[in-house]
Amino acid sequence: MSARPDDMPNASARLCAQAVKPFPNSKKVFVQGSRPDIQVGMREIKVSDTPTVFGSEKNPSLTVYDTTGPYTDPRASIDLLAGLQPLRAEWIDERGDIKHLTDSGSGSSAVRLAGRSPDTVRFPSNAVIRRARKGANVTQLHYARKGLVTPEMEYVAIRENRRIEELRDAYENGGLLQRHAGEGLGARLPSEVTPEYVRDELAAGRAILPNNVNHPESEPMIIGRNFRVKVNASINYSAVSSSIAEEVEKLVWSLRFGGDTIMDLSTGKNIEETRGRLLRNSPVPIGTVPIYQALEKVNGRAEELSWEVFRETLIEQAEQGVDYFRIHAGMLLRYLPLTAGRVTGISSHGALIMAKWCLAHHEESFLFTHFADICEIMKDYDVAFSLGSGLRAGSIADANDEAWSDELKTLGELTKVAWNHDVQVMIEGPGHLPAHMVKANIENVREACNEAPYCTLEALTTDIAPGYDHITTAIGAAQLGRHGSAMLCSVAPGQQWALPDRDAIREGIVSCRIAAHAADLAKGHPVAQIRDNALSKARFEFRREDQFNISLDPDRARDVHDATEEKDAHKVAHFCSLCGPSFCSMKITQDVRDYAANKGLGDVNEAITKGMEEKAKEFVEQGGEVYSKA
Amino acid sequence: MSARPDDMPNASARLCAQAVKPFPNSKKVFVQGSRPDIQVGMREIKVSDTPTVFGSEKNPSLTVYDTTGPYTDPRASIDLLAGLQPLRAEWIDERGDIKHLTDSGSGSSAVRLAGRSPDTVRFPSNAVIRRARKGANVTQLHYARKGLVTPEMEYVAIRENRRIEELRDAYENGGLLQRHAGEGLGARLPSEVTPEYVRDELAAGRAILPNNVNHPESEPMIIGRNFRVKVNASINYSAVSSSIAEEVEKLVWSLRFGGDTIMDLSTGKNIEETRGRLLRNSPVPIGTVPIYQALEKVNGRAEELSWEVFRETLIEQAEQGVDYFRIHAGMLLRYLPLTAGRVTGISSHGALIMAKWCLAHHEESFLFTHFADICEIMKDYDVAFSLGSGLRAGSIADANDEAWSDELKTLGELTKVAWNHDVQVMIEGPGHLPAHMVKANIENVREACNEAPYCTLEALTTDIAPGYDHITTAIGAAQLGRHGSAMLCSVAPGQQWALPDRDAIREGIVSCRIAAHAADLAKGHPVAQIRDNALSKARFEFRREDQFNISLDPDRARDVHDATEEKDAHKVAHFCSLCGPSFCSMKITQDVRDYAANKGLGDVNEAITKGMEEKAKEFVEQGGEVYSKA
Repeated sequence: MSARPDDMPNASARLCAQAVKPFPNSKKVFVQGSRPDIQVGMREIKVSDTPTVFGSEKNPSLTVYDTTGPYTDPRASIDLLAGLQPLRAEWIDERGDIKHLTDSGSGSSAVRLAGRSPDTVRFPSNAVIRRARKGANVTQLHYARKGLVTPEMEYVAIRENRRIEELRDAYENGGLLQRHAGEGLGARLPSEVTPEYVRDELAAGRAILPNNVNHPESEPMIIGRNFRVKVNASINYSAVSSSIAEEVEKLVWSLRFGGDTIMDLSTGKNIEETRGRLLRNSPVPIGTVPIYQALEKVNGRAEELSWEVFRETLIEQAEQGVDYFRIHAGMLLRYLPLTAGRVTGISSHGALIMAKWCLAHHEESFLFTHFADICEIMKDYDVAFSLGSGLRAGSIADANDEAWSDELKTLGELTKVAWNHDVQVMIEGPGHLPAHMVKANIENVREACNEAPYCTLEALTTDIAPGYDHITTAIGAAQLGRHGSAMLCSVAPGQQWALPDRDAIREGIVSCRIAAHAADLAKGHPVAQIRDNALSKARFEFRREDQFNISLDPDRARDVHDATEEKDAHKVAHFCSLCGPSFCSMKITQDVRDYAANKGLGDVNEAITKGMEEKAKEFVEQGGEVYSKA
Repeated sequence: MSARPDDMPNASARLCAQAVKPFPNSKKVFVQGSRPDIQVGMREIKVSDTPTVFGSEKNPSLTVYDTTGPYTDPRASIDLLAGLQPLRAEWIDERGDIKHLTDSGSGSSAVRLAGRSPDTVRFPSNAVIRRARKGANVTQLHYARKGLVTPEMEYVAIRENRRIEELRDAYENGGLLQRHAGEGLGARLPSEVTPEYVRDELAAGRAILPNNVNHPESEPMIIGRNFRVKVNASINYSAVSSSIAEEVEKLVWSLRFGGDTIMDLSTGKNIEETRGRLLRNSPVPIGTVPIYQALEKVNGRAEELSWEVFRETLIEQAEQGVDYFRIHAGMLLRYLPLTAGRVTGISSHGALIMAKWCLAHHEESFLFTHFADICEIMKDYDVAFSLGSGLRAGSIADANDEAWSDELKTLGELTKVAWNHDVQVMIEGPGHLPAHMVKANIENVREACNEAPYCTLEALTTDIAPGYDHITTAIGAAQLGRHGSAMLCSVAPGQQWALPDRDAIREGIVSCRIAAHAADLAKGHPVAQIRDNALSKARFEFRREDQFNISLDPDRARDVHDATEEKDAHKVAHFCSLCGPSFCSMKITQDVRDYAANKGLGDVNEAITKGMEEKAKEFVEQGGEVYSKA
């Protein structure tokens, strides 16, 4: 991995050593689509055969969804200054509805380059800036509604299936196919995700495929309740200058643990430069809260914000390649008094900024009054909306209250406006929420916003465990996912106080990934249970390395195991020897199975009964003092 | 804290420093019942007033449930050799249905003292061994069915209420009373837990009050779905000799983080001595799996087990004071073949021992054939059953299968047998379980076992995250609790591989405690939300110390906060100053509230609207370049 010389020393070495380390016993494989340039990357985990003593069964490799792009592929060469390969560039350009600008149409690059950032943190502007031709609309929603299946949609379809058709026989023979139907959100999930299904879900607004035309490096992914539940990793960057390698490291580290998108919540100086570095090196969509940068432009004085400043910011970010914008356009002036009786008032930072503006001007938010103008910008680049819930609850006490539900209705109206512009929309929520109110929350959102996908954040199910925010959130997020949230935002252990460090990012994302997977199992996603079954089978057959390698975080699994082995070797040894080497769960089950197989009896139950009789005899013959007293 | 000299060096010092440290800004308070010797210990957390700038509101102290007994009370003197005060001794003896034995009725103490343990690990036998007089039945279920309200029941009733009546006005004025009704498991939970309600729940078999007459040191607690959800902490002790202080330290450490009962899963040598030490020093009920010790008596050879060995073990443990026995009596011979097609066979260790016995003898388990004899022993000491689910699922694939549901029916029959002897019963389950199958699982158990309380363990919602078992379990446990599980068993991060160390015990119990509290909120336990509201209010008002002190794990909250502050001071400072000191969530809300109060206007909304107009004017007057460009 190469970077500028001043970046190299420590961060880059760590990045190479940890975040970029290939997963054990895994390789990156590519599944080709209908054309040679559709190459969908996945991770193939090779597993051992069942040990001879247990029957020498051949176990199939496992293909799992991979969010790491080229970073865990030792064959890929990474150049942080040049950025990743623009894999979607050809698909975007061949549609003929895009024009290339040599400079920003709005002059925003020039604005940026004339800005305050010192040269040492500069990141080059995009070589090419793409924008829709006049009168064109370049969103995936627009194409879907016209009935087109884009390469992006096909990519997503292949990615969601994870080679199920190719491997079905092997999975079935290995007993890995799912055994539980799932509850399927009231309707069964499709057993196969076709490109046409992806198109139809997009056209219905039930899913989004966030891929700005200026972020051609990103691998297409889909956010919708009838697909694999996704995880968003929120990261912040320090206001002080950090090296490219350090910034990209946080990104790559997040992807390693399962981040499907990244929310860049950086505040402070140089955020535009940081964002440029991230976008050029990110294989996943990146979202932002543009009002944060707009606020920087007016030196932190919310009352000095204006539509013009905000508009300029949107265009600058759209031209850089940001894939979705979190915009709190539904928070109207008249909703603010509804928060007066709350325990925790308004907790969304973006909403607070706009609340201050509204109070100062006693005017309706320009995010609302200029919403159609915002849509016009979004459709020129295919930026998706993340319609922010400014009035989401900051505590259990405030959950699902009137402030929230009134704002939600406005979000529903705005969703329609966006859809009239063929702009993709997801809805954000719900903040803190007790478990029994999850279903009502989701159903309200679904109804108010016409089934637009729901991206949930800060889903804390209780307020009393600061320092364990990742666990409190995982409990809520799993339920939200089960009932239909399409994407869950990770929360780090000390989220409310601080920007997460590496360890906290890992804890937060893995916890959230567990919740997402638990939701996939509950929904009955057709390939989700295969991984559980493969890992459980490995555990049952004492294939320890396979257990590590199949798990969500192989390094953690191995570390926890090894730390224990060393320290408690005598205890574990004792526990395992409690029944002697010839007696364990696996052995008993295998005895029963072998017996049935060897005798070639049709009725397995009969075989088992016969087997038990023989075994009883055998044990008695081995004799000794049965019923002996101690 | 005093212990034998050879115990003192490190473990004891650590115990004193960490596990026994009083909670910050908290004191142990005692609520007296209908007689002076009913003194129910609780923890009172003192909080600061709302800061002057936000209105100088007086905030009431918070009373929370406390599982630590005397250990966090600096006024208590702890003597590990003498054990805790036998607070229930008088209540037990005054009922006149108990006889005192100077030696074990069964000679089991003699057996123990003649056993293999070296003198260095010996722990003295109970000074007095209690047993029911001939023809008497000393279980709380027996008393309840006779219509008696025992001091134990009254204690529990007071404990569950946590001074709500005394503090109701203060809580209400502080806005701390719950705002959400909860779903109440189909029926509303009682707004006040009376001693008679406790009695009726016990009499119906819907709850148990596990308190062996030989464990008078324990503080009464109740396990039932219409009460606060409880947490069981499973701990193991090493086979090698460890000091009293080390062993008790694990116990006290578990109580500190919210363990309501302790499951002693020790195996190996000296387990009877270890158990004695624990019981004499434990203020919470202790459960065991007696078959583990029985197996030790036959040198680990399962096929040499017998009813006689098992019976002797039960009596020995009952005389020591074990409060509940996990017994896998429902696993019948004919169910074993149903596990042949499973991914993970039989995963319960106790069940494996008996499966081996059954296969060796081709006979029905003596746990089943002698079940009535077991009941006769249990009722003599008031030991409760934890009817083990030997065929619980060890993986997602095996969840809720036929093996499990068939065994469950037998557990239901055994529950009735136990109830015919007035012996208390809880049911154990479910093992790994995907989220959408939780409700069906609980409903099956409730129906099959006539509403006996459900104690859930290993509730992993997916198999793919080894090393994060505490989180995977917390997700499942919260849902189980919400739908009616009365007690949740904690699971440490690396549970499947190893005995947990101190850190792992803490992670496991706190995660489980979070799940239990999330369930209490969902059920609508009348005092649960008070703590959330108090903490959220403290957060909103920047009362940081109060946040720490009210939280489930004050030390962790403080550590996470402080680590962050130091490292990210500039980031946090920046984030907080994003809007300047006069602009934050609290300030805006407070501005609105103050205005309404000062103007003395009846209609708060009108006040708010007026306030916003004035504010807008004020801001404009302060002038400057509104709408200025960056």
